[in-house]
Amino acid sequence: MQEPAPKTIAIVGKYFAAGISESLTEIVDFLQGRGHHVVLEAETAQNVALPGIAAMTPEQIGEQADAAIIVGGDGTMLGIARQLAPYDVPLIGINQGRLGFITDISLERMLPVLGEMLDGQVESERRSLLQSAVMRDGQQIFSALAFNDVVVTRGAGSGMAELMVEVDGRFMYNQRSDGLIVATPTGSTAYALSAGGPLLHPSLGGIVLVPIAPHALSNRPIVIPDSSEIVIEIVNGRDMSANFDMQSLASLQHGDRILIRRSEHTITFLHPAGWSYYATLRQKLHWNEYPSAEGQLK
Amino acid sequence: MQEPAPKTIAIVGKYFAAGISESLTEIVDFLQGRGHHVVLEAETAQNVALPGIAAMTPEQIGEQADAAIIVGGDGTMLGIARQLAPYDVPLIGINQGRLGFITDISLERMLPVLGEMLDGQVESERRSLLQSAVMRDGQQIFSALAFNDVVVTRGAGSGMAELMVEVDGRFMYNQRSDGLIVATPTGSTAYALSAGGPLLHPSLGGIVLVPIAPHALSNRPIVIPDSSEIVIEIVNGRDMSANFDMQSLASLQHGDRILIRRSEHTITFLHPAGWSYYATLRQKLHWNEYPSAEGQLK
Amino acid sequence: MQEPAPKTIAIVGKYFAAGISESLTEIVDFLQGRGHHVVLEAETAQNVALPGIAAMTPEQIGEQADAAIIVGGDGTMLGIARQLAPYDVPLIGINQGRLGFITDISLERMLPVLGEMLDGQVESERRSLLQSAVMRDGQQIFSALAFNDVVVTRGAGSGMAELMVEVDGRFMYNQRSDGLIVATPTGSTAYALSAGGPLLHPSLGGIVLVPIAPHALSNRPIVIPDSSEIVIEIVNGRDMSANFDMQSLASLQHGDRILIRRSEHTITFLHPAGWSYYATLRQKLHWNEYPSAEGQLK
Amino acid sequence: MQEPAPKTIAIVGKYFAAGISESLTEIVDFLQGRGHHVVLEAETAQNVALPGIAAMTPEQIGEQADAAIIVGGDGTMLGIARQLAPYDVPLIGINQGRLGFITDISLERMLPVLGEMLDGQVESERRSLLQSAVMRDGQQIFSALAFNDVVVTRGAGSGMAELMVEVDGRFMYNQRSDGLIVATPTGSTAYALSAGGPLLHPSLGGIVLVPIAPHALSNRPIVIPDSSEIVIEIVNGRDMSANFDMQSLASLQHGDRILIRRSEHTITFLHPAGWSYYATLRQKLHWNEYPSAEGQLK
Repeated sequence: MQEPAPKTIAIVGKYFAAGISESLTEIVDFLQGRGHHVVLEAETAQNVALPGIAAMTPEQIGEQADAAIIVGGDGTMLGIARQLAPYDVPLIGINQGRLGFITDISLERMLPVLGEMLDGQVESERRSLLQSAVMRDGQQIFSALAFNDVVVTRGAGSGMAELMVEVDGRFMYNQRSDGLIVATPTGSTAYALSAGGPLLHPSLGGIVLVPIAPHALSNRPIVIPDSSEIVIEIVNGRDMSANFDMQSLASLQHGDRILIRRSEHTITFLHPAGWSYYATLRQKLHWNEYPSAEGQLK
Repeated sequence: MQEPAPKTIAIVGKYFAAGISESLTEIVDFLQGRGHHVVLEAETAQNVALPGIAAMTPEQIGEQADAAIIVGGDGTMLGIARQLAPYDVPLIGINQGRLGFITDISLERMLPVLGEMLDGQVESERRSLLQSAVMRDGQQIFSALAFNDVVVTRGAGSGMAELMVEVDGRFMYNQRSDGLIVATPTGSTAYALSAGGPLLHPSLGGIVLVPIAPHALSNRPIVIPDSSEIVIEIVNGRDMSANFDMQSLASLQHGDRILIRRSEHTITFLHPAGWSYYATLRQKLHWNEYPSAEGQLK
Repeated sequence: MQEPAPKTIAIVGKYFAAGISESLTEIVDFLQGRGHHVVLEAETAQNVALPGIAAMTPEQIGEQADAAIIVGGDGTMLGIARQLAPYDVPLIGINQGRLGFITDISLERMLPVLGEMLDGQVESERRSLLQSAVMRDGQQIFSALAFNDVVVTRGAGSGMAELMVEVDGRFMYNQRSDGLIVATPTGSTAYALSAGGPLLHPSLGGIVLVPIAPHALSNRPIVIPDSSEIVIEIVNGRDMSANFDMQSLASLQHGDRILIRRSEHTITFLHPAGWSYYATLRQKLHWNEYPSAEGQLK
Repeated sequence: MQEPAPKTIAIVGKYFAAGISESLTEIVDFLQGRGHHVVLEAETAQNVALPGIAAMTPEQIGEQADAAIIVGGDGTMLGIARQLAPYDVPLIGINQGRLGFITDISLERMLPVLGEMLDGQVESERRSLLQSAVMRDGQQIFSALAFNDVVVTRGAGSGMAELMVEVDGRFMYNQRSDGLIVATPTGSTAYALSAGGPLLHPSLGGIVLVPIAPHALSNRPIVIPDSSEIVIEIVNGRDMSANFDMQSLASLQHGDRILIRRSEHTITFLHPAGWSYYATLRQKLHWNEYPSAEGQLK
């Protein structure tokens, strides 16, 4: 897929990461050498001194940059993606360590790969987010965007939660469990996977509801269209809380309602040409490693 | 949702079912009394003599009827639905026994419910089908429509199967398992559910791939957009076969490729007003029955 | 199995249960009519006045009673069982509501069933318990008996826990998850089942470790001999707590070690002659109820 | 654990394996140099010419050898173990390729490791087997030993199986599924694991029943004492077959009964000192490899 070459490119680094300054400098030199205007995300700029490079807040990046390059892991990528969601700046992820689900360019190969990508050899994909609000007594007391998931859970050592779930105004069920995960396709490879959920391809228009340790054994994960409006009401349970990616709202009360729907925003990730989601899954999930040896019976 | 009142209505009965003749007569009388033109599906007509009622093949029903009423179970419903798929005649399901996932009107209440539905108090929903073909040495040797699923499996007592899966021309994985289920949302409550798959809402534009007893523990079910083109190639395994709902193709050979994509056809099911898919799930999956007694710890 | 007829029988009632007084009176009259010496558990006696019936603490019951009859649910039964564990008084469970896994005599049929059981027509089975201690800096800071399970979990909204598990002095794994359940056969039908654990027959000499939403997909439940000594060490995680049936110890610290082994005590449950564990499972787990209707394909 | 030094040692090679002759010669020389009397298993001797080394049938090995060294994979090991089961000759497994669950000595390090083991630095563990018989019209028509599992399954493309299961003369359930796996602890890491079963520690006195794609979602794996007598009766299903490790009995008929109980025999595996079952699990199941990158949210 052909994208116009970005003029202004923002660089975002992993917070508190040691030794990143050299890599960032390399990228900046490389981009400047190609004639791009390079800026540094403000918090990154506080950690890494790059003389002559302007710092910008995420909002400014959103308004002025044509692309952003993130150096870090999936967490760093999702963190800045959430902030840039209203602006839809395309993101490129460079991973310092083991490759992530969405940060798929290694530090070692970054310059030639970036070169090809900036020349237009790029795969572009759009990811959806969840817009969520918490209502108490008819008032909105909290709202947040989530890239991975919204999770409603009971506290530790506090018996079972009971949640009432409505979808598009229709009663789905009263669920007794440790909690419920509402995940995007992006989140389907994170916590939802650990709790037994299916993988969702990023371009599927779906949201998955994954109960955590449900009391009824037939309370299986369910995938619904991402046009759905989901309401989770706290019916019972102590120390209930809701998590929106990394943000947490504790002390939920009985009767509180968490509203979840697809955000109007999306985020665009750019990958090297030839990128394949399935290749990422194969590598991250070790799909070719088997528990039994060749000679094992069966 | 308001639908125009159907003029010609076809009646389809469960084959070999005893005691259905009385119910069919009741329905015919009721429909004729309301001024509808009533016809009987040909095979049904061979089992049940209804004097003065014309018999029609499924093709003729497809071309001439405005709706069809099926008396039987989900299996009967899906069987005729597959035959009527090219014509998109809306279907109404009346269940003789325990209500099904898609045959949701009981014999006892059928006349008043049918009356309301024919007056336009109706929920309409469209279900997708899978179009599948089997290729050997570049030639198509088989093709079939499937409402629930396409299943590729090894024979009993014959070691493990190895399947190569491609989606949209991209390699997904080489999977070692007992087999692979490719299911529609309709099929997600059938065999795919037993094999550990998630539920898919009927209006989700998705298809789920569920491995059966996969060797790699991370080979989890994956939901992909229903615009995907799926290829399953037989790499290894003895006595391999492919099933398309109830049709079966045995003796697959290594190198055979099963192509699967969404059919261009869809089927419309009509439900009584107020019908809810979630209510059906709650009832069929016993979502409110718990293994532990009230007083159980936790 | 033939047991000697108990002389002194203690009655234990569900706390705060309304309408239980009549049932207890019936049982007392019935037992006295058969010549047994009847006593009432002390807390039960505070809620239900039964003139002329002596009250006893659980310790006194343990020392003096030949059997105890519990009226309530599985929770009531397990609660008193834990207190009576050191004394091994055989227990009979009468359930007020839906039958439980271990309280399997209904209020309606209790007198004739009790009569037969006291005549020796009885199935006796022994259940194991877990003895657990929490060590901090080499000091034991807590200990408890558990009938169902010991559960170590993270707090809500607080990232993943990391637990180091040793069995019999050998390193098993470092597990990243929401927590870990260590369950007896009795507990295998409670929380462990919801978290994906297998059922363990009560007479199996085994303990099951069930990870809750484990990060590594191959972290499957593992059943080990009940002669094993298990150590769970808190490596990482916020708001970690440990639960021992209904008792909870919050604010665990990194480095805390939870030691778990089979208690030297066991509890004997008495069931009516012909009792079958599998019959209880069939009923409680709805083993004969299927999601799909008869006619469903497959 | 100290074992007496074996005098006569049998060598068993993987059938049809190329390049094994050199390794076998090395082992023979090494053992002879230490003063052991070395013999070669008969089929191995047909593939590999070792002048001056006597060949023995498995029966002769069983009667005369003090230990056997197997060079191959887990499959080779289990194959010879089944033949040697009546004699309880301790087995040592050397793996040519990736280490197996029970063949845990690598070709590279075999000589020093063997030396230490023959000096008595060894961990010894006993594994159980299943003794199985198939009854038709009251007559036994087949019998077999199984190290991993007995599996009763339907044929491909042939609807669902219905199996009636009895344990110790008590009805467990009528199960509708693709089939049922009855596995030893050894088999719990093989097919049973793929079908969703738990891991069983080898020294657990248990057998696990794992349904394959069961229709009732609450039909969970169940672990029963290995003193149990299990009967599986074919109630319904086409092309039913039973597998006993690698042996298969096809064309089972309705009413056929498969009887399964622990064999009176056991097999002893010898491992290098310091061997740990959990270390094997960690390596084979990749317990320390996680799907998400470090930086992933959650």
